[in-house]
Amino acid sequence: MVTQDEVKQKKVLNEIAKVVPQFPLDSTPPEMGRIIHKIVRQFANSNDPYKKLKDKYNRIALELYPELKKKVREADDSLLIAIKIAIIGNIIDFGVPGKFDIEKELRNAFQQDFAMLNYSEFKKALRKTNEVLYIADNAGEVVFDRVLIEELNKKVIYVTRGKPIINDATVDDALFCGIDKVAKVISSGSDAPGTVLSHCSDEFLNYYNEAKLIIAKGQGNYETLSEEKKSIFFLLKAKCPVIARDLGCKTGDMILKTFKA
Amino acid sequence: MVTQDEVKQKKVLNEIAKVVPQFPLDSTPPEMGRIIHKIVRQFANSNDPYKKLKDKYNRIALELYPELKKKVREADDSLLIAIKIAIIGNIIDFGVPGKFDIEKELRNAFQQDFAMLNYSEFKKALRKTNEVLYIADNAGEVVFDRVLIEELNKKVIYVTRGKPIINDATVDDALFCGIDKVAKVISSGSDAPGTVLSHCSDEFLNYYNEAKLIIAKGQGNYETLSEEKKSIFFLLKAKCPVIARDLGCKTGDMILKTFKA
Repeated sequence: MVTQDEVKQKKVLNEIAKVVPQFPLDSTPPEMGRIIHKIVRQFANSNDPYKKLKDKYNRIALELYPELKKKVREADDSLLIAIKIAIIGNIIDFGVPGKFDIEKELRNAFQQDFAMLNYSEFKKALRKTNEVLYIADNAGEVVFDRVLIEELNKKVIYVTRGKPIINDATVDDALFCGIDKVAKVISSGSDAPGTVLSHCSDEFLNYYNEAKLIIAKGQGNYETLSEEKKSIFFLLKAKCPVIARDLGCKTGDMILKTFKA
Repeated sequence: MVTQDEVKQKKVLNEIAKVVPQFPLDSTPPEMGRIIHKIVRQFANSNDPYKKLKDKYNRIALELYPELKKKVREADDSLLIAIKIAIIGNIIDFGVPGKFDIEKELRNAFQQDFAMLNYSEFKKALRKTNEVLYIADNAGEVVFDRVLIEELNKKVIYVTRGKPIINDATVDDALFCGIDKVAKVISSGSDAPGTVLSHCSDEFLNYYNEAKLIIAKGQGNYETLSEEKKSIFFLLKAKCPVIARDLGCKTGDMILKTFKA
């Protein structure tokens, strides 16, 4: 996405190959991705090579916002449909060419059922708290998160990545999508495409430690937080076979899952 | 397939990462595979870590041989069905558990049509020559090749790899499957999982240079010979998107294709 120049791509690959032997066997993909994309940024001569793409995703998602809100208004269970919308934000391909295709993708996504749904556990945890820590995933998707935040009716702390990494949402993306109107926006303080606690800021860790209910979006947050002993609800689409095997589901499945209810 | 030990797997990965920067940008997958699997063999402490697997594939394929011959006898066009059988040998998963599953896979494979079929060009080239150079791919598949060889009614030189490499057929596999009864068996002289001409023996190159009709099985031979200026008919299933794009077909497609008829 950053360059079509194959010579440059090979140089990036060579540099990545050099660091692979340094990765411990138990590294999570976001821990490796953090180092890999540092190399991509070096060779791209840019601190944010995916900026244009993220801006485009945000704009497309904002155009869809009224339609998403309409879906919520028309639903029997507005919270459940808002949860689905938050996952769909992680599914649809904002890079597809026309408005028609995106609307077709949206329709297909809405027709898909959850493969795992700890909904009653989620509602119970929600009733017991006044504050929700919401850990974001990608740009564009942020608008879909906003729809869910607006249905939670709680004080929400919305956490983005600390620095640009791939197409992950940063504070800038959250502000561009108006999350500051419905939540307090902070960053994890880390440039990993996930939540590697040992790399996170004290500010984030304070919120994290105090949180009674955490929503963690996407695979990167699942890969880094799935073994934590907190009340975390993972909202994701299982996109790769390793994650699907870990969850006991199929690739493509939509999941709302907690390990500690 | 060689080991389930993740620590060993990571060591192999680390060693492979070290050689990646040395691969030229224009390396073919078999050129890289040759070096990668040298590393696998070192760590497996074996010159032929896939031996058991290959033996199993050969045995299963030999059990299927009478059924394949029956298919040829019953076909309207016995040469065309034999070509399909040769490709199916590359498709079916000899690793599947039961006889029932393999027969189901076989049935499905026979129902698939060719996506590209230069059949009249093939028959024309066949009429014009007395000798066919047949470059093999995998163990097990060898039995399926035998069925095609028996329908060619020509003198056939059957070429295996020069040394064990992954599950590719060696001279041993060819002899085990009885190819010596229907063809002259030689090896490429090379341990690449493809036909890297610069690594091949003089014996092979003599046959190659003189050949008026060459059948090259599978992706590895396609990747290494597709740009050669010889009358080569590639018989393969496009298994990866890069090959499919190069051929202008879809992954999963069955192909009989020549670039010089």
